[in-house]
Amino acid sequence: MKEPMILDGQEVSKSIKEQLALQVETLKEKGVTPCLATILVGEDPASATYVRMKGNACRRLGIESKKIELPIDTTTEQLLKTIRELNEDKAIHGILLQHPVPEQIDERAAFDEIAIEKDVDGVTTLGFAQNAFGFANYPSCTPAAIMAILDHYDLPIEGKHAVVVGRSPILGKPVSQMLLNRNATVTTCHSRTSNLSEHVKQADIVVAAVGKPEFIQGDWIKAGAVVLDAGYNKGNIGDCEYNGCAERASAITPVPGGVGPVTISMLLKHTVESAERSAQ
Amino acid sequence: MKEPMILDGQEVSKSIKEQLALQVETLKEKGVTPCLATILVGEDPASATYVRMKGNACRRLGIESKKIELPIDTTTEQLLKTIRELNEDKAIHGILLQHPVPEQIDERAAFDEIAIEKDVDGVTTLGFAQNAFGFANYPSCTPAAIMAILDHYDLPIEGKHAVVVGRSPILGKPVSQMLLNRNATVTTCHSRTSNLSEHVKQADIVVAAVGKPEFIQGDWIKAGAVVLDAGYNKGNIGDCEYNGCAERASAITPVPGGVGPVTISMLLKHTVESAERSAQ
Repeated sequence: MKEPMILDGQEVSKSIKEQLALQVETLKEKGVTPCLATILVGEDPASATYVRMKGNACRRLGIESKKIELPIDTTTEQLLKTIRELNEDKAIHGILLQHPVPEQIDERAAFDEIAIEKDVDGVTTLGFAQNAFGFANYPSCTPAAIMAILDHYDLPIEGKHAVVVGRSPILGKPVSQMLLNRNATVTTCHSRTSNLSEHVKQADIVVAAVGKPEFIQGDWIKAGAVVLDAGYNKGNIGDCEYNGCAERASAITPVPGGVGPVTISMLLKHTVESAERSAQ
Repeated sequence: MKEPMILDGQEVSKSIKEQLALQVETLKEKGVTPCLATILVGEDPASATYVRMKGNACRRLGIESKKIELPIDTTTEQLLKTIRELNEDKAIHGILLQHPVPEQIDERAAFDEIAIEKDVDGVTTLGFAQNAFGFANYPSCTPAAIMAILDHYDLPIEGKHAVVVGRSPILGKPVSQMLLNRNATVTTCHSRTSNLSEHVKQADIVVAAVGKPEFIQGDWIKAGAVVLDAGYNKGNIGDCEYNGCAERASAITPVPGGVGPVTISMLLKHTVESAERSAQ
C-alpha cells in the first residue's frame, strides 16, 4: 500500500504568509497598517479561542486586530450598529463576526450588514454570489483554503468529479461553486442524501464539511482519491475517519494541521488585500 | 413499454395564470395595475420575438408592459441610465432586460443595476445568492418554472439524485441550488465534464440546460427518471433527444410546450407579486 501524500496545511500557510509579510511591509512603508476587527458576542469558550487564534495570527504578521466583545444578550440592532460603525471606520480593513452568534440575533442580517469591501471572511449574501459567479474578492475562507491546498500541491481539478458532503452557506455551498468554476463536475450531498456512501465512492475529490466526527468512512473512498477534511470536531477530530481514508487516498489533509491553518491564512490574506485596495 | 407522463407546461401555466388573474383583479380594485418594463437592445429577431411574447402574455392577463427599445450601439452607461430611471419609476413593478445584449455592453453590470425589488426575472448577483440561500422573492424564471412543474405534478425531489447539465448563472447554477434546497442530492455537469453520460445515467431527475439540440441521448436516461428539458434551440428542438428519452423516462417535458410557457408564467407571477408588495 502506497502512502498518501499528506496535504500539510502548515506548509501551505507558510508559503502564503511569506508572501503576505512582504505585502504588509510595503503597506507599512505607505503608512498603512492592515487591521482586522473581530466581533465576539457572548462568552462561548470555543469561539473565544478561535478569535484569540485569529488575533495572534494577525499580530505575528504585523496586522493589527481590534477585538470587539459584546455581551451575550446583545440584540440584532445593537450588533448591526457596531458593524455599521466598523464599516465607517477607515482604519479597519476587514470585519470578522465570529459565529455562531447567540440565538436571539439574526445572524444572516448581521453578516449582510458587513460592507462587501470589508467582508474578508466571505460571509455576506452578495459575496456568496460573486464567488459563485467567479468574481468575488473575498470568498469564504474555508472554501478558499481548500482551493489553495489543491493548488499548492498542483492537484488537478478540471474534469474531476468532486463530491462535497455538506451544504452550509459558508462551506459546502461555496466550495461546490468554486470547484464547479474550476471545471470539476460537482455533486453536493447532505443529511438528506440517500446512499451517501455510493456518492462518495465515485469521487476523485472528496470534501468533508459535515461537522460530524469521523463520519466519512475509509471504505467510502475510491482508491487514489484526494480527501480534504474541513471538519474540526471536539478533540481535534476531523469529519473523516483518517486512518481508513488515508489507506485509499492518494492525498489527504490531516486534522489538525490541514484545512484549519490555511483557513486562518486566507483571512489574513483577504485582510491584507483589502488594505491594499483601500490604499490605492 | 409504459408511456411516460407528459409534463404539460401549458397546463401548469394555465393553473398559475388562473390564480394570477384573481390577484391582478384584486390589485386593480386597489387602483394598482402591475407593469413590467421590457428592455430590448438591438434588433436580434429571436430576442424581439421573446420580448413580444412576454408583452402579449402580460396583456392577456391585464398586466401592463412598457416596451423600451434601445439601438444596437447603446453603451453600458446609457443602458444603466435607462435601468436607473425604471428603478425610480413607481409605476413599474418589474424590469426585464432581454439577453443576450450586444457585446459592447457589460451584461453583468446591467443586470446588477436592476433594483432587487424589481428583479422579477431573477438575474441579479444578489438575487442569485438569496435564491441559493432559500429566501429570494424572485428566483430566475426558468429554474422557478422547473420547480413549479415538479410541484404541479407532485414529483418527489427530496432524497432524489438530480443531475443538472449546464451551469449558467440564470439556469444551471440556480436550478442546482433550488433542487439542493429541496433536499435533492445535486450533481452539476457542464462542457468540461468527463463521462457525462455516466453521470446522467445515475439521475432520478435530469435537467437539461445545455443549449445544444438533442444533446442528451435516450440511452443516457435511467429507466423511470424524470426529464426536464429547458433547452429551446432553433426549430423548436430541445436539449434532449425526445423520443429516446421518452421511452425510458417516467415523466418528461415536451419541447415546445414544456418548460418554456411556465417560464413566462413565472415572469408574470413575479411581476404581480412585486406589484402586491409595492401596494402594501
